[in-house]
Amino acid sequence: MTMKLYDGPPAPNPLAVRLFIAERGGLTLDVVAVDLIHLANRDPAFVAINPFGTLPALVLDDGTVISDIVAVCEYLDEIATAGETLIGTTPAERALTRMWTRRVDKDIAQRFISWWRGSDDAIAFYQGHRIPEVGGRADNRHIAEQHLDMLDAHLAAGDTAHILGDRPLLPDILLFSFIFSMHAVVPWLMNPDRGHVTAWYDRMQARPAVQPSTRPVTSIPTR
Amino acid sequence: MTMKLYDGPPAPNPLAVRLFIAERGGLTLDVVAVDLIHLANRDPAFVAINPFGTLPALVLDDGTVISDIVAVCEYLDEIATAGETLIGTTPAERALTRMWTRRVDKDIAQRFISWWRGSDDAIAFYQGHRIPEVGGRADNRHIAEQHLDMLDAHLAAGDTAHILGDRPLLPDILLFSFIFSMHAVVPWLMNPDRGHVTAWYDRMQARPAVQPSTRPVTSIPTR
Repeated sequence: MTMKLYDGPPAPNPLAVRLFIAERGGLTLDVVAVDLIHLANRDPAFVAINPFGTLPALVLDDGTVISDIVAVCEYLDEIATAGETLIGTTPAERALTRMWTRRVDKDIAQRFISWWRGSDDAIAFYQGHRIPEVGGRADNRHIAEQHLDMLDAHLAAGDTAHILGDRPLLPDILLFSFIFSMHAVVPWLMNPDRGHVTAWYDRMQARPAVQPSTRPVTSIPTR
Repeated sequence: MTMKLYDGPPAPNPLAVRLFIAERGGLTLDVVAVDLIHLANRDPAFVAINPFGTLPALVLDDGTVISDIVAVCEYLDEIATAGETLIGTTPAERALTRMWTRRVDKDIAQRFISWWRGSDDAIAFYQGHRIPEVGGRADNRHIAEQHLDMLDAHLAAGDTAHILGDRPLLPDILLFSFIFSMHAVVPWLMNPDRGHVTAWYDRMQARPAVQPSTRPVTSIPTR
C-alpha cells in the first residue's frame, strides 16, 4: 500500500491541495480521480476508504485518512524531500502562516461559500436541492467583505507581493483557490476598489503552478 | 521586552488558550488582562499593540502579534520546555490533530456561535446592537448538530476517552472551551441523545486544568 491522494472535481478544496503540491515541490503522489459530480464519493468503495465521503482525502501508508485540506497541506509540507516550506522555518513564521490561514479561511473563504450557497444559482447548481446554509446571505457577505478590506489594507501596509512576503504560502494558496473557483458566481469578490487584493490575485494567477494541468478542467457554472 | 499574552474576558477564545497552557505544561507567560467588557480592546494603547483589537493576543519578543487561538496554541506547543505535546509527535499524529481541530472549529464551534448571534439573547447581550450573522439560524444549527452526531459516532467507534486517544489534545480543548462557555445559552449543544459527547464533556470538565482559576470568572448571561 502506498500513500494516495484521492482528488476531486473542479472545486476550491481539491484545487487548494493541487496548487500546494505544485508550489511546494519535493512531493510525488499517487493521485486517484474520484468523480464527485456523479456521486462516486458516495460509492461504498470510496466510503470504505473515507467514511466522511469528502474530497480531497490523503490516505497514508497505514490507511490513516486525512480529509481536511489544511491538515493535508501541513502534512505534505512536513514530509516533502525537496523544495521550500510553505508554512515557515521558525515557530514565529509558522504562527503567522497559521494565523493568516485561519483568518482567510474562516472569515473570507467560508463566508463567501456560505453566501453563494444561499443563492438561486446554487440551488440550480445542486439541481433544485436546497442545501443548508440558505439565509444570512447579507451577513456572510458583510463579514467576507470586511475581511477582504482588512486584507487589502494589510497588503498595502506591508508592500509585499504576497500575504506574508515575497512568495505565496499556505494562506495565499487557500484563498486564491477559493476565489479562482468562485469569483464567476460571487462577483463582489473581485471589487476593483480593493486594488491590492486584485493585484495579488493577478500575481497568483500568473504563477507557473497555476497552469491548465493544475487548474480545474471546467469551472462551476457562471451566471 | 518579553513575550506577553493579552488575555480576555470570560469567553470561548481566551478560555481555549488558557486551558491549552494549563494542559500543555512547560510554559511561563506574562499575562495582561484586558477589560474587553468595557471596550479596553478599542483603546488606542491596545490597538497600537494588536491592530485587530481581538483577544487573546500573543505578542512575541520582537513585537510580532499572533491573534488567532489555533496559531497561538501551535506556537506555544512548539516552544514549551517541558510537558507533553498537545499537537502530536509524528507528521501523521499532527495531521490527525489538525484535521479534527479544523473540523470541530469550522463545523461545530463557529456554527453554534453563529446560531447564538442570531438569537434575541445575543441581541440583548450586545445591548441592542444587532451584530452581523443574524439569519440562517436553523441552518447553522443543522450543520453543528450533524457534526456533533458525527463526533458522537467517532467517540463511540474509537472507544477512546478523548477525540484522538486517552488524553485531550488541541481539538478537545478548543471544542470544550466553546461548549463550556456557551451551552447555557445554546441548550441543544448538550443533547443527552449524544451520550458519548456528553461523557467526553464530563471527562473534560473533571480535568485538573479546568479549575476555578482557569475557568472564566463569570459566564455569559444564561436564559
